Amino acid sequence: MTTQELVAQIRKKKSFLCIGLDVDLNKIPEHLLKEEDPIFEFNKAIIDATHHLCVAYKPNTAFYEAYGLKGWKSLEKTISYLNKKYPEIYTIADAKRGDIGNTSTMYAKAFFEDLAFDSVTVAPYMGKDSVEPFLAFENKHTIMLALTSNEGAFDFQTKKIDDLEVYKHVLETSKNWQNSQNLMYVVGATKAEYFKEIRKIVPNSFLLVPGVGAQGGNLEDVCKYGLSENIGLLINSSRGIIYASKDVNFANEAAKKAEELQVKMATLI
Amino acid sequence: MTTQELVAQIRKKKSFLCIGLDVDLNKIPEHLLKEEDPIFEFNKAIIDATHHLCVAYKPNTAFYEAYGLKGWKSLEKTISYLNKKYPEIYTIADAKRGDIGNTSTMYAKAFFEDLAFDSVTVAPYMGKDSVEPFLAFENKHTIMLALTSNEGAFDFQTKKIDDLEVYKHVLETSKNWQNSQNLMYVVGATKAEYFKEIRKIVPNSFLLVPGVGAQGGNLEDVCKYGLSENIGLLINSSRGIIYASKDVNFANEAAKKAEELQVKMATLI
Repeated sequence: MTTQELVAQIRKKKSFLCIGLDVDLNKIPEHLLKEEDPIFEFNKAIIDATHHLCVAYKPNTAFYEAYGLKGWKSLEKTISYLNKKYPEIYTIADAKRGDIGNTSTMYAKAFFEDLAFDSVTVAPYMGKDSVEPFLAFENKHTIMLALTSNEGAFDFQTKKIDDLEVYKHVLETSKNWQNSQNLMYVVGATKAEYFKEIRKIVPNSFLLVPGVGAQGGNLEDVCKYGLSENIGLLINSSRGIIYASKDVNFANEAAKKAEELQVKMATLI
Repeated sequence: MTTQELVAQIRKKKSFLCIGLDVDLNKIPEHLLKEEDPIFEFNKAIIDATHHLCVAYKPNTAFYEAYGLKGWKSLEKTISYLNKKYPEIYTIADAKRGDIGNTSTMYAKAFFEDLAFDSVTVAPYMGKDSVEPFLAFENKHTIMLALTSNEGAFDFQTKKIDDLEVYKHVLETSKNWQNSQNLMYVVGATKAEYFKEIRKIVPNSFLLVPGVGAQGGNLEDVCKYGLSENIGLLINSSRGIIYASKDVNFANEAAKKAEELQVKMATLI
């Protein structure tokens, strides 16, 4: 999917909500556990109930890998279902991958070709030649970690290299990489005051923003400093939406939570 | 596996060789392609022919994920085969994972429990709470990227935070994390002169060293500066060994290449 198509979808739906599909078998409604593939059935119900309120879904691969081969199959079925039934939806494999050149190409093939996601998250530590192989894929986005929403972000990301924080150095440097127009960045919502600085470096790039809701980030603050001319924000919520209820009507309850966010978003853009 | 058991195996075999199982269907012998699971058959042959010459195998997960569900199955079969037939062998999932707390726990479960690897590689960018969930697993090692063997290592890893290079800062900081005794580090062989500095910070930690062979690193130089009292080195070679030949006798040719390295290693410890 192109950035323009994503922006068009956001304007149409008046939503820049991304729903994180981080499925933990201990947290989903019990009645689903008797299904052959409870993870897929859960995702399918959530997607069918919320697809008109959000523009993107983001399965975190850890939650699928933890269940081994069965989990990988659930991931494959989820992305296939999305691509067939809701092709307008933007899809993000939250995988945080990154390796040396030819190995990154293999990861890119896994997520862009085999699973056919629109984008994948990557880690920046190994630098340019670990990320450029992802950027080479046309109409696919590579979403690089910049400033994350966890405590550990202060261990390295906010430390200074020559008076510039590591995460700003990451943003600056990556602008010069080949096909950098295919880059987006992860910026945690728990650090809303940082968005002002970030927008000075990447005024137009899309930012994927986790941490609204369960992790305490504030939507209004993020929008105040983070919105760009082309919106430029994808706000992710996972637990706050998908685990709204463990009852039989869990998907409707999830939709209510998603709608709360979408209604707020409509007033902000 | 405990560090002591790994060291005992190294002393017994006079080898600290790790063989990287980075299987690319375009590079393996053609006669294997007619098998139901060519990747597993290739790995099985390589393992059977080389297990007495090395102490560890390291499948890079990218090469399996690129083939989707089939690839994940090949990975599962490979680690099961290793754990059943050669339980003395140390196993490394080269996955370079890392995410916020509960998500890292899911990755740890995937590799330590579901697949039953002895260790997994992780990226440090997200800091303490992205790595400690891995460290909590007993008798499992977490191998964190410090200084990698690629060009991109100079983008961020060798830049200075308060007069200390980022990778040294990563080493120093991680020593204070909970269960840091379960940490090992990735240090590329192409930067042998750096090992002297690294040993000042982590004198006893095991270092996983890629980049000998295909990437140009020199074994003697790495040992000169990198060996510790308890050996403390795992030298990885992937392409240089497993793709030694595309003939029917490829596994024997691979064993010859592994033996060349093992013989050199025996003189160095």
